[in-house]
Parts: sequence; C-alpha cells; structure tokens
Amino acid sequence: MISESEKDGLIKENERLDDLQRNGLMLIQDPEKFCFGIDAVLLSYFTRLKPGGKILDMGTGTGVIPILLSARTSPSEIDGLEIQEESADMAQRSVIYNELENIIHIKQGDLCHASEIYGRSVFDAVTCNPPYMINDHGRVNQNSMKAAARHEILCTLEDVIREASSVLKPNGHFFMIHRPFRLTEIINDLLKYRLQPKRMRFIHPFTDREPTMVLIESCAGGNYGVKIEKPLIIYKSPGVYTDEIHEIYGGTL
Amino acid sequence: MISESEKDGLIKENERLDDLQRNGLMLIQDPEKFCFGIDAVLLSYFTRLKPGGKILDMGTGTGVIPILLSARTSPSEIDGLEIQEESADMAQRSVIYNELENIIHIKQGDLCHASEIYGRSVFDAVTCNPPYMINDHGRVNQNSMKAAARHEILCTLEDVIREASSVLKPNGHFFMIHRPFRLTEIINDLLKYRLQPKRMRFIHPFTDREPTMVLIESCAGGNYGVKIEKPLIIYKSPGVYTDEIHEIYGGTL
Repeated sequence: MISESEKDGLIKENERLDDLQRNGLMLIQDPEKFCFGIDAVLLSYFTRLKPGGKILDMGTGTGVIPILLSARTSPSEIDGLEIQEESADMAQRSVIYNELENIIHIKQGDLCHASEIYGRSVFDAVTCNPPYMINDHGRVNQNSMKAAARHEILCTLEDVIREASSVLKPNGHFFMIHRPFRLTEIINDLLKYRLQPKRMRFIHPFTDREPTMVLIESCAGGNYGVKIEKPLIIYKSPGVYTDEIHEIYGGTL
Repeated sequence: MISESEKDGLIKENERLDDLQRNGLMLIQDPEKFCFGIDAVLLSYFTRLKPGGKILDMGTGTGVIPILLSARTSPSEIDGLEIQEESADMAQRSVIYNELENIIHIKQGDLCHASEIYGRSVFDAVTCNPPYMINDHGRVNQNSMKAAARHEILCTLEDVIREASSVLKPNGHFFMIHRPFRLTEIINDLLKYRLQPKRMRFIHPFTDREPTMVLIESCAGGNYGVKIEKPLIIYKSPGVYTDEIHEIYGGTL
C-alpha cells in the first residue's frame, strides 16, 4: 500500500491528476504536452479479452489504455511500450499511483522493434492507438509528444501492423483505432502480415455524418469474413452524448 | 416511334411490366423467375458519371441498371452484358419498350470474358450488382435465374473485379454493391487488380443496426485514400422509408 502523501509525491509540477471515471482509477497527465482523447477510451471499450491473457499496448503514451483495460478484464499481465522517456515515466508513475505494478509493466522502447524487445508469439492481444496522419513536415506540431502521437514520425502504419503480427500468438487478436480514409491501406497491410480483419465499427459524430474514426479487430490467421457492427454515434444532439457514450464513460460525464 | 400495340406485343405470358418511377421508364420482369431488388436501385443512385461516357453493366439481368442510368446521366452508350439468354432477351425487349436502342446495347455473354468481348481499356465506368453469396450447393435456389443472381455459380468476385479492371480506361470508375461481410476480400481483390477504392457507403436497415449492404466506388489507378460516406439508412421506423430512400425512388413509393 502506498500512502496518500507518497501518492502526491508522484505528481510533478505542471502535471495534473485526471479521474478516469472507472473503479477510482486516475491518470497523471501534463495538459501542456498531451492528454489522451476519446479514441483511447473507445479503443479500450472495443477491446475484448479472455481473462488471464497477456496484452501489449504499443505506443502506450501516458498509459491510459493499460490502466483502463485493467478495470475491464482480468488479464494476467499488460505490457505498455512507449518510446518517449517523458511519457513512459508519467505512465509508470500512474501505474504506481493506481497500485497496478503487479499487472501493468511499462517499458521505454521503440514499437518498431517490439518483437525484438518481447519476442515473437508472446501475446494474446495487442492494442494500438497509433498516429493517424501520414508524416508531413509542413503541418507537424512542434511539441514532440503531440507530434509523435499524431503524425507518423517515429513509426508508420506498416511498422505497427508488422510488429503486432509478430508478437501475437496464433489466433491472438489485434485491436486498433484509426482514421477511415486510411481503411484500404490498413486492410492491405493487415492481410500482408496475415492479420485477418474480423470486426469493424465506424465512429460517427452524429447519425447523419460520415465517420471520423474506425475500430478494427483482427485475428492472427484465419479466413475471410468480417462483421461490420452498427455505427457508434458520439452525440445525439449538439453537445449531448448518446446513451452508449455515457455508458462507456461510466455514466459520469 | 413504337406503337402502343407493338409495345404490348413485347410482353410475354407470365411477364409483367413494372414502373421504374423515373421518367416514365418501365421494366419487363417475370415475378416467377427474378425481380430486381433495392440493391440495383441503390447502385444506380450511387453511380456518378460524367456526361458522354461509355458504361458497361456486367451481369445486367433484366437490364434495370442500364435503364435507370439512362435517366440519371447523359451517357453516349451503355452496354449491358448478361449470360442468361432469357434475362438478356427480357432486357432487350425492355430497351425497345423504352425506345432506348440508341443508347443501351444488350449482349448475351459471359462477364468472365468481358475484356475479350469488348476489348481492354474501353469503358469510362463499369457497374456490377454481382451475386453476393459464395457458392454453396446445399443452399442454392433451384431456379437458375435466381440462383445465378445470388450465388457465385457462373462467376466469382475475382472474375468480376478482374474483368472490370481490364475493360476500364485508365482513371475509369468501377461501381459495385456487395455484402459487408466480404469487404476484406473485396478490397484485397480490388487492389490486386489495381482498382483503388475511393468512396464507400454502408447501407443499414435502421440507424442502430449493422449494415446489410455496401456500395464501393473504385478508380483504375491512383493512390490510397478512401472516403467513407455517411450511412445510408432505409427505414426511419418499421415500414416507413427515410427521406433519402423516398428521394431515390422519386418520391413515388
């Protein structure tokens, strides 16, 4: 057990403690650098796991996905891999704050080498909320944490998919959120690395708008055949979340 | 000009004349054999064409797509290819009935050999409402017109995509409707034959249901990048069509 004063000591200047609205879990973030978005929450919600499995979150940032997943399932172990020292350090302190060191292991490292770091055929599930945008120097945010989270500076889509395929056990599952405009490239790369898309869900701001994100579950091996689920709608009217989004946020938004 | 009595003579016993609810266009069908469904109507609606182009409808059946497209655009020519003699004959008589012989040319032939029949790089656009189901002898309808329209008995998905790619001019467009569960296979085959998916729209019976059909526009050549459009919803409540479906059917349903 960690004391309240020891907990307070984990939070540095400029950082803040955010309530994840689930099981009392908290997350240390620096609002000047990068805060997790709804995509990380939706990816955790979309991820389905059998109890007792080993999970890797690639590019874990401040660790929001491992911490949310720890509340949703009973994994034996969740690994979080993050290349940026500052983010990995923040994630590690959040793990300690939530007293999850027995379950969540944060490592600083490059997801482009995940299979060298962890070995091949090791995980039952992999999650990833990768940078969405193809790198374009003209538009890249100067803040390196934000830039690396949004643009393919440190890894490409193919790096993510190749390494996910490599570290997954046969029949392991890979859960990713991405932008719909890249769907064709995503499917091509998944198939190239023998990850078979099995379940997809498009996320729309409103019922009558085009999707802004897509959730994809793939299986290592297997045959063609994908289930496109009903749309996930964020707002029922401007500023008013749908019942499903309220449920995802634990009814406490 | 064809007289009313000559028109009546085009319709055989057991056949009936259906109003396509657009520009007074009519279609000869045999309800005992096979009647077009909403998918053909939605595919015509989804198809975007520049005026003056040459179009091929592969597996045209009784010709509903060429006849609907003739009202939506100003093509120089629409070819309809149909393997089954009875369907092709019905399509040809509907063309005569609507006095569209100058625009629509129906040919009896196998779409698996479309590029031999018409030549390569000939069309500005190709449309296809192919059989959706992988052939499965146990479940195939005994009526051959229905069976060939629904099951991959006479052609496979790859045949359709290969031939569409072959007969299209560079930058030509291919419009197809299919089942969402086959999306991964569809995208894989499109990319294999250098057709780049550019626009997709999922069709849902209701807002909160999974899609039952998907419309896909691909371009011969080009780079990654696909636009997923807003959902196309059929019903706003049980038995009541949405405004968009009313509009597609010309407000006369």
